[in-house]
Amino acid sequence: MPDPSNTDAIPDANTPYARLLAELRELAVLTSINATLGWDQEVMMPPAAAELRGEQAAMLSTLMHERRTSPRMGDLIAQCEADAETMADPDAAANLRNLRRDYDRVTRLPTELVREMAEVSTLSMHRWREAREKGDFAAFAPWLERLVGLNRTTAEALGVPEGGELYDALLENFEPGMRAAELDRVFGELRAGLVPLIRELRESGSPPDAAWMNIPLAMDAQVAFNRGVVERMGFDFNGGRLDVSTHPFCESAGPGDTRLTTRYDATQLLSALHGTMHETGHGLYEQGLPKAQRFGQPLAEAASMGIHESQSRMWENLVGRGRPFWEWALPELQRQVSDPAVARLDVDTVYRGLNRVEPNLIRIESDEATYNLHIMLRYDLERAMLKGDLAVADLPGAWNERVRADLGLEVPGHKEGVLQDIHWSMGAIGYFPTYTLGNLYAAQLWDALSGDLADLDDQLRRGEFGGLLAWLRTNVHAHGRRYTAPELCERATGRPLTHEPLLRYLQGKLRPIYGL
Amino acid sequence: MPDPSNTDAIPDANTPYARLLAELRELAVLTSINATLGWDQEVMMPPAAAELRGEQAAMLSTLMHERRTSPRMGDLIAQCEADAETMADPDAAANLRNLRRDYDRVTRLPTELVREMAEVSTLSMHRWREAREKGDFAAFAPWLERLVGLNRTTAEALGVPEGGELYDALLENFEPGMRAAELDRVFGELRAGLVPLIRELRESGSPPDAAWMNIPLAMDAQVAFNRGVVERMGFDFNGGRLDVSTHPFCESAGPGDTRLTTRYDATQLLSALHGTMHETGHGLYEQGLPKAQRFGQPLAEAASMGIHESQSRMWENLVGRGRPFWEWALPELQRQVSDPAVARLDVDTVYRGLNRVEPNLIRIESDEATYNLHIMLRYDLERAMLKGDLAVADLPGAWNERVRADLGLEVPGHKEGVLQDIHWSMGAIGYFPTYTLGNLYAAQLWDALSGDLADLDDQLRRGEFGGLLAWLRTNVHAHGRRYTAPELCERATGRPLTHEPLLRYLQGKLRPIYGL
Repeated sequence: MPDPSNTDAIPDANTPYARLLAELRELAVLTSINATLGWDQEVMMPPAAAELRGEQAAMLSTLMHERRTSPRMGDLIAQCEADAETMADPDAAANLRNLRRDYDRVTRLPTELVREMAEVSTLSMHRWREAREKGDFAAFAPWLERLVGLNRTTAEALGVPEGGELYDALLENFEPGMRAAELDRVFGELRAGLVPLIRELRESGSPPDAAWMNIPLAMDAQVAFNRGVVERMGFDFNGGRLDVSTHPFCESAGPGDTRLTTRYDATQLLSALHGTMHETGHGLYEQGLPKAQRFGQPLAEAASMGIHESQSRMWENLVGRGRPFWEWALPELQRQVSDPAVARLDVDTVYRGLNRVEPNLIRIESDEATYNLHIMLRYDLERAMLKGDLAVADLPGAWNERVRADLGLEVPGHKEGVLQDIHWSMGAIGYFPTYTLGNLYAAQLWDALSGDLADLDDQLRRGEFGGLLAWLRTNVHAHGRRYTAPELCERATGRPLTHEPLLRYLQGKLRPIYGL
Repeated sequence: MPDPSNTDAIPDANTPYARLLAELRELAVLTSINATLGWDQEVMMPPAAAELRGEQAAMLSTLMHERRTSPRMGDLIAQCEADAETMADPDAAANLRNLRRDYDRVTRLPTELVREMAEVSTLSMHRWREAREKGDFAAFAPWLERLVGLNRTTAEALGVPEGGELYDALLENFEPGMRAAELDRVFGELRAGLVPLIRELRESGSPPDAAWMNIPLAMDAQVAFNRGVVERMGFDFNGGRLDVSTHPFCESAGPGDTRLTTRYDATQLLSALHGTMHETGHGLYEQGLPKAQRFGQPLAEAASMGIHESQSRMWENLVGRGRPFWEWALPELQRQVSDPAVARLDVDTVYRGLNRVEPNLIRIESDEATYNLHIMLRYDLERAMLKGDLAVADLPGAWNERVRADLGLEVPGHKEGVLQDIHWSMGAIGYFPTYTLGNLYAAQLWDALSGDLADLDDQLRRGEFGGLLAWLRTNVHAHGRRYTAPELCERATGRPLTHEPLLRYLQGKLRPIYGL
């Protein structure tokens, strides 16, 4: 509770902008409650509480939606836009640009459509789980058909951005400012380089040894090692946690509350580490957003899903699968764990093993290179479905054919194929591309920051991540949604997004490992 | 999400009673969100999230208060009361009796008074913490004075029950149907028997040995033992958890979600056990209330704080400090823990040591017998302050004198004296008596159930708690707030509350242990 004598420290508490900020903060507090309950559901909640939790979430969603779409909110935004003094402040102008965009988008959707999408996607997630277990695409097909239809209606209601296509209206949900035409260009060039690179590696006949990964390591030791790495990366445990859940995630409810999860397998030496570093990347972004000052404002929110993913992928892959990192991390692990098998490991073995490329039917089990082929395949297929160029009934065939062409694998059943991911069953179309955008942004940002931090590799070799984090704080985190992702990329790296840094990075790392 | 084809299974969904139940359920869902956040705050929340959590709680309190006091709620209650068909249903009539009572009480309080009480108590809890640390009563006195005044205003607004006094208006918050005059009678008789009993024990010169309690036991082993006991007692982990917090508590958010906490000290063999059994007693009550069917209705709520406490005290003391329990629990502990010091323990030593009586300055560290003297002292003093018979400035003197008279101890400083408890700083007057009411109800219920369960001791000796729990489910838990606590006591035990069962139980257990 603030000291009552401090209330006069809030200036002009009655301007439309001050009232708008108060309104936004209330909405953010409601949203933060939902976030904490979401974390609890995955990490702590007793199984029998699922129904109650559903009711809680539904009630909060209604309250949030009411506030987000309220005429009061619309009026306040309009009043601020009409106020020259407010708009002369670049922070306020940046907030209002985003608020106008969000408000227009959310109020364009008929309540009935939002309700139907929520209901159908909840039901179809259940159907998808059953269908996946049995590999029964036909059982899921009518639901997917309905979801594609609802997405089409949603995209039409949201409106096609100028010069764009229907898919862009959905892509805007996750990656504001990005367009399918741009994705086609960048993804196409990346794919043109990746497919031959992966073929070359597979045909080299000298894949690195990965047997050492099966060295067992007790849970406790893994927990301690992971926590140590997370702390070392700069994650603030005073304002966060690291726990265990079935699927690792990062949930940031608000200022001072960013929670990571991971999962351990005692039969695998490094079972959790890269998942942990991935989520810590997300967590560091959340902790770096200016929430203490601006909670509830767009300036304290992430620029896009792709930028968010760039932070997680950077720490997971560019740091966590790099040689310099392991020159610090392996001795550190060996110091903590007294196990002869661990003691016998050398940096080269670990580095090489962690960068083994091997096409896998399952997206989330794929290596850093082939992963992107998984994403492009999903992007192309979901876009074709939305356009009406691909019938849902033809989806499995198109999927299997593309896996054969790109990954050289035969899909034995739909469980390992078209039914493997939850995203479509949740009604999410336009989300998949953000994963590969994350890889692309990460590599391009890494290029730029490697130029600024001349001794970055030496810092990493000493387990010093402060220089890297400070660069990200300044060039990415601090901006929130001040810039769109494409703008942010150009400001931070000096040029628009291209495929080159990612492709060059993968070629430069993988070819030598494979003796090419 | 329910199958849409099932909606016709809800009959008469548009009667005032059906609409009232829907309204109550929404309020209960909101309340459950607050409960889950409260648990998170004590068990999981990162320290830096405290401010955000305060905002979340304040927002939920506002939303809950709006619904609880809304004219819509009042109209629905009145419509139901006017509907003969509804009132002919005994369940509906019982719900409405409680709802009318609660609605009238809450709407009698001016919003400004509620706000002021919330603000002052939040601030004064902070002041109390500082004052307690320094043992500085003078620093806390002005806050206590204000809180006593606010409580007086609150009691006047709530209204004095017929034939009662101002204190009764507050007592109704925690123990509906109880009166100060009744407390005077029962507490007075209990005290008249307890003071000489405790003197007799102290003067016997043969206190039981308690040195064995200092056998250390690793956290992990204690966690496993405690969890095993909780499971054995019948607590449903599918709808609950057991975690660690600074102060043990039980939080039940709603159906399927009842969470217990405890705390461990590796230097004390049984550090957590009785706290755990206490909270499990609360948890079993919560899990026994008919929430699956009636969440949000008074019929699914606890009868009173005193009845709630009777459940925790029964499991903690009447079971957990009883000889039959230890005939099962000690071999069980010895089986789980391979430690020669534990192996050497015998049931008699444990049983006697757990029942050592030794007046202690601190309420929460007191034994089962002297604990009640702590409560009576607080009850008498808070009632005198409310009446205006005792000035806040004279409170420490009155406290110290009473401790000398009842416990035979000198209070070295206010930290160990009048500043030790948080309750008054939270503005809670009328709460303390429910602790001793819990002991009284527990003993009287135990008398009754021992008559019904002829072989109860044998069941406990085998670690079988199902018979005991079933009796409590039927005679206490299932009723919710159908009866007031005094009514429930009389129905379950055949007579009104008296001091006799508790006094007889303590005399019968303690005298033989002390060789008297």
